[in-house]
Amino acid sequence: MSTAPVPHLLDDPHHDGSELYVPPGTPALGDEVPVRVRVPAGGAERAVWLRVVEDGEPRTVPARLDRADAHERWYEATVRVHNPVTGYRLLLDEPGGYRWLNQRGVHARDVTDAHDHRLSVHDAAPAWLHDAVVYQVFPDRFARSAQADVRALPGWATPMGWDDEPVATGDTGRQLAGGDLRGVQDRLDHLQRLGVDTLYLTPVFPGRSNHRYDATTFDHVDPLLGGDDALVALSAAVHARGMRIVGDLTTNHTGAGHDWFRRALADPTSEERSFYYWTAQDPGYVGWLGHRSLPKLDHGAPGLARRLTAGDDSVVARWLRGPVALDGWRIDVANMTGRYGADDRTHEVARTIRATMRAVNPDAVLVSEHFHDAGTDMGAGGWHANMNYSGFSRPVWTWLADPAGRTPTLGLDVPLPRRPGPDVVATMRDFDAAVPWAVTTHQWNLLASHDTPRTRTVVGTRELQEVAAGLLLTYPGTPVVFAGDEGGLTGTTGEHARVPMPWADVDAGGGPRWDAATFATYQRLIALRRSSRALREGGLRWAVVTDDALAFVRETADERVLVLAARAPWPGAELPAWLAPDGAENLYGGAALPRVEGTGPDRGPVLRLPGDGPGVQVWRVR
Amino acid sequence: MSTAPVPHLLDDPHHDGSELYVPPGTPALGDEVPVRVRVPAGGAERAVWLRVVEDGEPRTVPARLDRADAHERWYEATVRVHNPVTGYRLLLDEPGGYRWLNQRGVHARDVTDAHDHRLSVHDAAPAWLHDAVVYQVFPDRFARSAQADVRALPGWATPMGWDDEPVATGDTGRQLAGGDLRGVQDRLDHLQRLGVDTLYLTPVFPGRSNHRYDATTFDHVDPLLGGDDALVALSAAVHARGMRIVGDLTTNHTGAGHDWFRRALADPTSEERSFYYWTAQDPGYVGWLGHRSLPKLDHGAPGLARRLTAGDDSVVARWLRGPVALDGWRIDVANMTGRYGADDRTHEVARTIRATMRAVNPDAVLVSEHFHDAGTDMGAGGWHANMNYSGFSRPVWTWLADPAGRTPTLGLDVPLPRRPGPDVVATMRDFDAAVPWAVTTHQWNLLASHDTPRTRTVVGTRELQEVAAGLLLTYPGTPVVFAGDEGGLTGTTGEHARVPMPWADVDAGGGPRWDAATFATYQRLIALRRSSRALREGGLRWAVVTDDALAFVRETADERVLVLAARAPWPGAELPAWLAPDGAENLYGGAALPRVEGTGPDRGPVLRLPGDGPGVQVWRVR
Repeated sequence: MSTAPVPHLLDDPHHDGSELYVPPGTPALGDEVPVRVRVPAGGAERAVWLRVVEDGEPRTVPARLDRADAHERWYEATVRVHNPVTGYRLLLDEPGGYRWLNQRGVHARDVTDAHDHRLSVHDAAPAWLHDAVVYQVFPDRFARSAQADVRALPGWATPMGWDDEPVATGDTGRQLAGGDLRGVQDRLDHLQRLGVDTLYLTPVFPGRSNHRYDATTFDHVDPLLGGDDALVALSAAVHARGMRIVGDLTTNHTGAGHDWFRRALADPTSEERSFYYWTAQDPGYVGWLGHRSLPKLDHGAPGLARRLTAGDDSVVARWLRGPVALDGWRIDVANMTGRYGADDRTHEVARTIRATMRAVNPDAVLVSEHFHDAGTDMGAGGWHANMNYSGFSRPVWTWLADPAGRTPTLGLDVPLPRRPGPDVVATMRDFDAAVPWAVTTHQWNLLASHDTPRTRTVVGTRELQEVAAGLLLTYPGTPVVFAGDEGGLTGTTGEHARVPMPWADVDAGGGPRWDAATFATYQRLIALRRSSRALREGGLRWAVVTDDALAFVRETADERVLVLAARAPWPGAELPAWLAPDGAENLYGGAALPRVEGTGPDRGPVLRLPGDGPGVQVWRVR
Repeated sequence: MSTAPVPHLLDDPHHDGSELYVPPGTPALGDEVPVRVRVPAGGAERAVWLRVVEDGEPRTVPARLDRADAHERWYEATVRVHNPVTGYRLLLDEPGGYRWLNQRGVHARDVTDAHDHRLSVHDAAPAWLHDAVVYQVFPDRFARSAQADVRALPGWATPMGWDDEPVATGDTGRQLAGGDLRGVQDRLDHLQRLGVDTLYLTPVFPGRSNHRYDATTFDHVDPLLGGDDALVALSAAVHARGMRIVGDLTTNHTGAGHDWFRRALADPTSEERSFYYWTAQDPGYVGWLGHRSLPKLDHGAPGLARRLTAGDDSVVARWLRGPVALDGWRIDVANMTGRYGADDRTHEVARTIRATMRAVNPDAVLVSEHFHDAGTDMGAGGWHANMNYSGFSRPVWTWLADPAGRTPTLGLDVPLPRRPGPDVVATMRDFDAAVPWAVTTHQWNLLASHDTPRTRTVVGTRELQEVAAGLLLTYPGTPVVFAGDEGGLTGTTGEHARVPMPWADVDAGGGPRWDAATFATYQRLIALRRSSRALREGGLRWAVVTDDALAFVRETADERVLVLAARAPWPGAELPAWLAPDGAENLYGGAALPRVEGTGPDRGPVLRLPGDGPGVQVWRVR
C-alpha cells in the first residue's frame, strides 16, 4: 500500500440545502430566496452566476461576493421561487472555462438539469424528524407479553418457538411466534436505553400471515396483537415517554381476505368491485407481483379514495386521530401504488394522503417504501421521505460487504460485490442528487429491515458493523434501526432476519445471541447524534473518498463535525488546517486530530487524518 | 504529444435502440419485445440479465446466449411492454462484481433509472425523418423575388439593403430585408444542389418584426411574404420536387398585435380574455420573458385549445391540410408552452398537438424548441424530437471552439470554452441517455440557427467547419442546416447571423462572401449520408474518445460505418481487426484503413486509425 496521503476534496466549491446556504423553512410561490455558495480561496473564479429554471427556461443572474477571508469566499444570489419546484445551479466563470456546481458536485462541462439544486414549496417533513432515531419493530417477533399466550393459533399459522430460527426461504409467512403489542409496550425501556425515540411498527391490521401485509381489514388491530385496545395503550405509553409511533399502511393491495375484496368478489355490482383490477386470466384479478393472496387496488376508483386515503373518514386519517394518534405512516409498496399499465396515479395518491394527513395532524410524517429509484416520486408534494435502500443501504453494504460472505444483492440473483469507496460514493451522490435537499436530509436511512439480510450478516464482523452504524448515525437523513441489529443479530434473508428478540440474553446484559459490545456501540453513536445538531441538520461536504476510507463534514451555522469511516487501514489524508483553527475535539472513536506540518511543497500546517481501520472517528472542529 | 496509440472503447458491451438490438417499429402495451446485447469476447460475464421496471418495480429476467463467434457473444432477453414507457437495462454478472449497461454506458456500480433504455408505445417520428436533411430558412433573409419590391414598408420596419450587415444586438427586429416566399421558391434549385430535402421555414404569419415570432394572426400568411397564395405555391413546388416543408408555430405566446389579444384587451368578457395570463402589474399581462410585445398564452383555457391546438379547426390542423399541406410543425418556445408558475400543461399541450396532427396527417412531424434540457419532455407522447442545442450543438461547439474566438456561450455571459473530447462526449451521452433511442435517432441536430452565432464564426476556420459538418451528417438524428452555413457565412450573434444570402457570389460559384469549398464539403457530406443507411438509421457505438479525436461506429443489420473526427493531429488508435474482416473502404476524407500489426503484447492485427487532423474520415467496414 502506498503511504502518501490521499488527496482531499475540500478545495471544491460547495452548496447544499442546509442552513449555511439556504434559509431554513419552506418557501412560497413568488418568494425570493437568497442562496449562498462557498468557494475555497484557491479557486480561480472571475465571477459566480446562478442559473435558475423558470417555466422550463433558464435565467442566469449574477451572484455577489458577500464575504471573504483568507480561506474562502462566500457568494450570494437570489432564487425567485417561480414554480412549485424550482431548480437552480451555480456557474463559476473561470479562466479555463466555466464550471457548474449542482447537487452532484462540480463539473467542467455542460450537464443536464437532472441534478440541479431544488427549492420546493411543498412542506418538508415535520421538524421532529430531524431529531428522530427510528426503531423498526416487526410485531410478531419483538416481544410476547403474558397476555399473548392465551390466544388460539389461527388456521393459517404454524407455531414457532420464541427461540426458533425463522425459515429463510419458501413458505415463510406462516410461522407465528406470537409477539404482541403489549409485549412491545413492556419493552419500551429497551428502546429508551438504546436512545431511539420513534417506534415504527410494521402492520398491525389482521392478516393471514406473520407479516400482516395482507390485511383483511384496516378497521381494527389484529386481536392476535391485542386488538385496538393494545394499540391505544401502546401509543399512550410511547407518547407518555415523549416518543413517537409510526404505522405501516399497504395502499398498493389488500389481502385476498380483506372485507372489501370479499364484497367485491361476492357482489360484482358493489362499490368495492371498483377498488380492484380485474382480468380475464386466472385468478380473475391482478395480484401484487402475481400473488393471488394480494389483490391490487385501483386508485382510479373514487370510492376507494374516500375509504382509504382522502378525507376525515379515511383509513389514513382515522388512525392519526385519538385515541391511537399515530405520528405518521410508512406506505408499503409506495412505488407501485397507483401504477398499473397505462395508469400512473402515484403522485396523485401520495398528494391525497399527504393532504389528508396535514388536515388531521400537520406534524405527522409520510414515508414511502421504494426499494429502487424513488427520485421522480420525491419532492413532488407527496412522500416526505423514502426508505433509502438505494441511496444508503445498498451503497454502504457494497462498501462493507464481507468478501467471504454469501449475501445476495438485494433483488438480484448475483452475489453482493465489495466495491471501492469512489464507486460507492458516486452511487450515493447520484441518488442524493436526484431529490431536493429537503428530502435527503429526512430520508429514512437503514442498514437492514424485515426485507433484507441483517447488517451483521452482510458485513461479517462487529468492527465492520460499527463502521456501518457509524455511517447510519452521521449521514444526512433519519437513522432507522431494525430491532435486534443493535445486538448483532444475524439473518441471511429478509425472512430469516425476522428473528425473535433474544430477551434472555438481552436481559442478562449479553449472551450467545446478543452482542453487548454492539449494543454499546449503537448507544454511543445514537447519543453522539443527539449531542450534535450538525449531525442531525448540517450540510454534507465530502472530504475524502478513497477505496478504504470515507470522510465528510457535517456543518450548521454554529457547529462543524468531521466524520471518518474506514473499512481497513489506509494511508491517511491531510486536510487544510483552517478547517479547525481552534482544534479538533474527538467525539467518537479516537483522539484529538493532530495539527502537523504537511507533506505538501509548502509544508503548511494540516490536520492529519489517521489511517487506522476498520473504524469510525468523529471530531468537532472549530 | 505522446505517440502511443489511444485506447479504444470497443471492448465494452453494447446495446441501443437500433435495429441490431431492438426490432424496428413501435410496440403496443402488452407486447413482448426481444432485445439483444453484444458482449465482446474479452468479457468475463457468467450470465447476463435484463432488469425491466414495471409499475415502478424492477424485475430481472435472464438473457439467453443467442449467438457467439470468436469476437463477440450476443444475448437476448424479453422486455414486456407493461407501461407506456418501459425502462430496462442489462446486468452483466462478472466475477469482479456485476456491471450495469444502460443508455449512458457501462457502470461497475449501482445507478439510478434515469438513463435506462426505454421502449415507448407512443408513435415515433415519421419514417421519412430518418432520411431527411433539413434546411432552415429565415424568410426575410433568404431571397427576394421580383414581386417583393412592389410592396410598401410597414410602419414598424426600417429598410435593410440585401447586402447590409444585420444589426448584432439591441433593436434587431426592425431591419427588414424584404425576402419573400416566392424568393424561396425561385431558389429551390439551390436546396436540391446542396442535397437537402426538407425546408423548414421560420414563421410566415404576419407580425411586427422581421422574425415574425410575434404573430398578429395565425389565419393567413404575411402579405409581405406574398400572402397565402405564395405559401400554397411554395408548398406545391416543394412537394413537386419530392421535398417536404415544415412550418413554425408559436404556442407559448402571440404578438401583442394578435387578433385574439386585441379582442381580449378590448372586451374583458370575451372568450379571448381567457387565452392570456393577466396580472396586476404593468403592463397588466404576462409577456414572454417580460416582453410586453409577446403576451403569454394560458393553455388552461379550453377555448384556446379549440382555436390553436385541438381538433380539425385548430391552427395546428388547418395548415397541415391542403392546399398548403405542411409536413409538420416546429413549435417555438416549446419548453415554456403551458408552463407558468404552478401551471404545468406542457405534456398535455404537446399530446394534444400530436393527436391533432395524427388525425390530419399521420406522417407529419412535431419538433419542439427547447434550448436546454428537454429530457423530461421527450418520449412522453408529445414532441417527436427536439432542436438539439444541448445534446449536439453546444458540445460540438465546445469541442471545436476557436480558442482565439470571442463567441459567448449560448445563453450565458461567459466565453465559450474549448473542452477536451471526453468532456464533450460525456455531455452528449448524458443528453442522449435522458431520452428514448426513438427520440435520439430523430433529434434535430444543428450547428447553428437564427438564434445562434454562425458555425464558421464559432469554429474559426474552413477546416474546423468541415469537422463540425462531418459530425452533423454522421451523428444519430436529423441534420439541420441553417441556410447560408453551407457557404461559410459568418455571424457573431443569432441576430447578426441572419445575414441575407449573398446570391451574387453564390451564383458566381463562390466569391468574397461565399466559400465554394465549404459548399462542396456540405454537398459531399450530405451525399455521403444519403449513400449510407447506417449513417441514417444505425446504432451508435463510441470507439475512441480522446482530447482531439472522436470516433464512433454506426451500424445496421447490413452495414457498418466508422466515423473519425479530429480537431487537431493526435496519436491515432488501433481498433480490433475483426471490426473489418473484409476491409475498410474509405467513403470520405482519406484512404482505406490499413490492417497492420498492432503495438499490443500479442502484436495481433489491428486497424490503425490515422492521427491526421483537423479533418473527418469515414469508412465502410465489413
